[in-house]
Amino acid sequence: MSYNSFGHSFRFSTWGESHGPAIGAIVDGCPPGIALSEADIQPFLDARRPGTSRFTTQRQEPDEVRILSGVFEGKTTGTPISLMIENVDQRSKDYSEVAKAYRPGHADYSYDTKYGLRDYRGGGRSSARETASRVAAGAVARLVIPDIKIRAYVVEIGGDAIDPAHFDAAQISQNPFFCPDAKAAARWEALVDNARKSGSSLGAVVECVAEGVPAGWGAPLYMKLDAQLASAMMGINAVKAVEIGDGLGAARLRGEQNADAMRPGKDGNPHFLANHAGGIAGGISTGQPVVVRVGFKPTSSILTPVETIDRAGNATDIVTKGRHDPCVGIRGAPVVEAMMALVLADAKLMHRGQCG
Amino acid sequence: MSYNSFGHSFRFSTWGESHGPAIGAIVDGCPPGIALSEADIQPFLDARRPGTSRFTTQRQEPDEVRILSGVFEGKTTGTPISLMIENVDQRSKDYSEVAKAYRPGHADYSYDTKYGLRDYRGGGRSSARETASRVAAGAVARLVIPDIKIRAYVVEIGGDAIDPAHFDAAQISQNPFFCPDAKAAARWEALVDNARKSGSSLGAVVECVAEGVPAGWGAPLYMKLDAQLASAMMGINAVKAVEIGDGLGAARLRGEQNADAMRPGKDGNPHFLANHAGGIAGGISTGQPVVVRVGFKPTSSILTPVETIDRAGNATDIVTKGRHDPCVGIRGAPVVEAMMALVLADAKLMHRGQCG
Amino acid sequence: MSYNSFGHSFRFSTWGESHGPAIGAIVDGCPPGIALSEADIQPFLDARRPGTSRFTTQRQEPDEVRILSGVFEGKTTGTPISLMIENVDQRSKDYSEVAKAYRPGHADYSYDTKYGLRDYRGGGRSSARETASRVAAGAVARLVIPDIKIRAYVVEIGGDAIDPAHFDAAQISQNPFFCPDAKAAARWEALVDNARKSGSSLGAVVECVAEGVPAGWGAPLYMKLDAQLASAMMGINAVKAVEIGDGLGAARLRGEQNADAMRPGKDGNPHFLANHAGGIAGGISTGQPVVVRVGFKPTSSILTPVETIDRAGNATDIVTKGRHDPCVGIRGAPVVEAMMALVLADAKLMHRGQCG
Amino acid sequence: MSYNSFGHSFRFSTWGESHGPAIGAIVDGCPPGIALSEADIQPFLDARRPGTSRFTTQRQEPDEVRILSGVFEGKTTGTPISLMIENVDQRSKDYSEVAKAYRPGHADYSYDTKYGLRDYRGGGRSSARETASRVAAGAVARLVIPDIKIRAYVVEIGGDAIDPAHFDAAQISQNPFFCPDAKAAARWEALVDNARKSGSSLGAVVECVAEGVPAGWGAPLYMKLDAQLASAMMGINAVKAVEIGDGLGAARLRGEQNADAMRPGKDGNPHFLANHAGGIAGGISTGQPVVVRVGFKPTSSILTPVETIDRAGNATDIVTKGRHDPCVGIRGAPVVEAMMALVLADAKLMHRGQCG
Repeated sequence: MSYNSFGHSFRFSTWGESHGPAIGAIVDGCPPGIALSEADIQPFLDARRPGTSRFTTQRQEPDEVRILSGVFEGKTTGTPISLMIENVDQRSKDYSEVAKAYRPGHADYSYDTKYGLRDYRGGGRSSARETASRVAAGAVARLVIPDIKIRAYVVEIGGDAIDPAHFDAAQISQNPFFCPDAKAAARWEALVDNARKSGSSLGAVVECVAEGVPAGWGAPLYMKLDAQLASAMMGINAVKAVEIGDGLGAARLRGEQNADAMRPGKDGNPHFLANHAGGIAGGISTGQPVVVRVGFKPTSSILTPVETIDRAGNATDIVTKGRHDPCVGIRGAPVVEAMMALVLADAKLMHRGQCG
Repeated sequence: MSYNSFGHSFRFSTWGESHGPAIGAIVDGCPPGIALSEADIQPFLDARRPGTSRFTTQRQEPDEVRILSGVFEGKTTGTPISLMIENVDQRSKDYSEVAKAYRPGHADYSYDTKYGLRDYRGGGRSSARETASRVAAGAVARLVIPDIKIRAYVVEIGGDAIDPAHFDAAQISQNPFFCPDAKAAARWEALVDNARKSGSSLGAVVECVAEGVPAGWGAPLYMKLDAQLASAMMGINAVKAVEIGDGLGAARLRGEQNADAMRPGKDGNPHFLANHAGGIAGGISTGQPVVVRVGFKPTSSILTPVETIDRAGNATDIVTKGRHDPCVGIRGAPVVEAMMALVLADAKLMHRGQCG
Repeated sequence: MSYNSFGHSFRFSTWGESHGPAIGAIVDGCPPGIALSEADIQPFLDARRPGTSRFTTQRQEPDEVRILSGVFEGKTTGTPISLMIENVDQRSKDYSEVAKAYRPGHADYSYDTKYGLRDYRGGGRSSARETASRVAAGAVARLVIPDIKIRAYVVEIGGDAIDPAHFDAAQISQNPFFCPDAKAAARWEALVDNARKSGSSLGAVVECVAEGVPAGWGAPLYMKLDAQLASAMMGINAVKAVEIGDGLGAARLRGEQNADAMRPGKDGNPHFLANHAGGIAGGISTGQPVVVRVGFKPTSSILTPVETIDRAGNATDIVTKGRHDPCVGIRGAPVVEAMMALVLADAKLMHRGQCG
Repeated sequence: MSYNSFGHSFRFSTWGESHGPAIGAIVDGCPPGIALSEADIQPFLDARRPGTSRFTTQRQEPDEVRILSGVFEGKTTGTPISLMIENVDQRSKDYSEVAKAYRPGHADYSYDTKYGLRDYRGGGRSSARETASRVAAGAVARLVIPDIKIRAYVVEIGGDAIDPAHFDAAQISQNPFFCPDAKAAARWEALVDNARKSGSSLGAVVECVAEGVPAGWGAPLYMKLDAQLASAMMGINAVKAVEIGDGLGAARLRGEQNADAMRPGKDGNPHFLANHAGGIAGGISTGQPVVVRVGFKPTSSILTPVETIDRAGNATDIVTKGRHDPCVGIRGAPVVEAMMALVLADAKLMHRGQCG
């Protein structure tokens, strides 16, 4: 029972605060003999890195990862892999306001109530900065499941959704929104700009697909693959909803519409005629693409004043100055990918352990 | 790492198959000195019990629970509480068809792929019958959090939603749908009857609210209360979506709309002006009602023929005869309540352990 | 974190009290497809069963095990295996004395202090009766490691040790002491009889050897094979010491005496010239026999009066009447074997999970 | 299931190799609001630090600890505490011999067999250097149980035991052996010098006593306090035996000799007339001092040549040059203390969680 660990056979633990000297992760249970260097991790951190466009926070963090243990002569040894990222741009601003009053939507009040104190500098442990540790650990997880292709992208911002007919995977890396629909991306520029300039913020929906997951991963009943994914995704900062496959949409279908019929495939493997289930049946992968959709609330840090109370219980208003993402869901895409990789690597090792 | 356990400080493990001699649960970590007898558990099992209306499966199971350990002179002793429910109505039907072919939407194919064999009688371990064990364990959990009021109800069936303006808690126990809106319940009679008679099935959405949860439960970062709830709910049979508070709706709000503003309350406690967050901020309870919404797919067992393959890989069609719920989401309501209780009891003990 | 579970990938949980209706175990994580019936378990329970000679307690328990789940058509399905043993001979004696006063050496006082109450009938949960559940679970574990031969035997009773030169494995099943030295067994008859008749009791040392354990099981640093064995054995009722290999004897050797030198073996495998380490180096098996030695204190239930206090704190004397083993260590041998099997089955699956 | 974590409610994970850039630990689950700075940890690291006398390895490591997270304004925040110790004196020696051949008694062969590769520089992950991380984590654990006094000392080296009649706690810090008997310490100087000069090594026995542990900590049945201690101690490098209370000695007592009789104490609390049980009954603390004894084998790294094989399987001899402790058990004393503190802090929080 570790509050700050996730996974079972492949397991990671994270530490660190937004404005401490560094943040990091330990990856435990990684198979030995896998080629690993910082270069395998850095690109994923770069994708999540702040300050790369005007649509994300302007905090400048190089997010350079160091591997401190668990690798010898370029290969994993099977012992814990310690990853560390130094915090560089902890701007020496005045936090006296945040220290005194509670920012609605943030963890300020709940942390204070639970612990009796909190590190208020940049949100401390509750800052989305922690997700860099997840992305670093996720990059290691990917190497454990090299044949699985994981791709997350933003399908909706502020209620404006992509047109599935315009889905083009090649577009995802071509715009600052991880958006697979070029037209939607163009619309979102104005949308997000407007929110940012008006001191507001927007929510988003991220979809993630993992292709190449073999049938048989996950385990009944409290280690179901979908339950693990739900926990993984709901634990990301600002997430309020998780759907597998058709999700809530499935609740509106009739049984015969929702059935993923099967037929013999030309390659001898079963061929599914649909994937409403998102690749998971009874908590176990079916061999179809694993599909998860994740809803992010709008960033809670906004310039619009909000009614709140201070630590003494007095009424006040708060405006969250500083550098913030106008839409945290955008940078959520690389984090969702990382969590998918972490869940799948764990599922692979657990399955191998029990079933050989 | 147990595949069939859930929770940490308050933890339960379940066992048993749909057509084995019995099913059951062990509750571990329960505080000592709590008054407990079968009478504390039975009403919750009765609420979930099949065969009580024409809108649920006609399997007749008394679902009588026995406490085999962990209670002495009417009180919990702090040692494991073993709960057993005998299976009575395992109808001796012919399962040869299910044994041979895969029912789409069920765990047949994925279990076979994972384990190389499966108990096909009534779905074996993957049957929703297992949820009786959860409900029994949940009844014990409620006694650990006696001041918390938990209520689940169905808010939507087959896409037909209740009118929130007609919400009346007193209605929930007055109709066979756990529906808080009398008019919706009346509509659903025809809706579900129609689906049942046409050999089809419907999905549903269940909402669950826990009132009286104190601020401070749950823990960052991988033991967040919302992540625990997401895992708990997504692991229930047929669930494909979990939302906390406004859920996906929050993704369509602007930051200032989504903020749960605070004001000093008349009782000296903080007063929230809204609860978009569903009572959880940063993974920790805020003292507001905890709200979760759970989407159930339509029952996969339908009389409408569906294309599939048999174990040898040949094309065939399957019709799932037998006794089935035309809408599994309905009986999901008591299960959702149980999982809420189990998560909260665990959160209470974990919080007390760390923070005193 | 379950108080009543042991193991990780192969994991069991036990429940039940000495005088409740039944006791039992759930085995979780067992690989699928293993042939299993009650007949695979019963012989091990019979070896541990009380009442088979005058040197053990006279409680008469058939200890018949029932498999309630996890097996289909004679094979494990990969889902939890529920094992139940009914208590038959819960003699309706008067427990008022034990209820009121604390028996030194027993868990009476510590349970009362911890929980505020205790099931005093026959020791409740703290009774050695629980070890039947371990033996049942251990029988399943053996099937996971069919090529490993596990043998436990008593090497010392009341300070009277066997002569290693007289070790004869065939003798172990030929006397009521699991003693591999016929001469020692003959001496022990008088020794144990004398203790029993004088209302006293004796301690014992059990040794257990597992042959056929491949090199590479166990994992640094907090899942070391020897640390798992130490936890497994120290948790058995009445155990106060655990040694691996030469144990405390190694602390009296010089480095060169203690070294297990290696030479190329004729079969191409490394050949060790000694086994001071008991088959474990750095927490990982070396391929040599795994050797553990376990010290049992004398039975705390004796007819000799002992000074104690009652629940109100008043001075009194207590004599523990009833049916007791004059030397609990004897029946500890099958329990030690079971725990060895459980640790090794777990280690096998964990190793396979991480290292393939 | 983390291979490199220990504990449940209070839990630590370690990482790092002997010759990597650093080693460290994450402490998770620490209660909030505890005053903590590096100065609370450093003295314990200094006690374990190598190179302080000629009786320990001459590796020069300042072992300066840095707190990287989990502390804000001098107090613990309840979030993970990351502790890091840089490796300074990784002497750039030639490891080609250790890389090629297996040092008997070391983890070389078992690691290679398990993982297919190993970090051979100074033993990599299997080096006793890792115990510095335990000591650092243990220093935090002590602050969670401030009223408990923990003291470990060496009671035997190379078979030469202290005289209990000469026990003087004040002596422990007055000699390089953590020896409470001044005369024994004087004898050991010659003993250890002789072993060192002759290229040999010696074993040792360390005893540890925790005073002030309240009754009621620990939990049946697989979370017994003695089982947790056994796992904690057996997992320390070079340990081969663990005893609780009288340990193996108890196996040679009769029931009435071993009974820890009770009498009403003058302060109203129960008074025990003896402590054969080492302060634990039924796996739960009794309020008496908790006593554990730990047997360390002689250091495996010796200058005396030992027969072995190389990675190709050929016969060779090996001499382990370099800087080594002639008796690893000596520096084991601070590590044993740390593990005692870690087990007790965890037991405290677990007890509070379940029993309030």
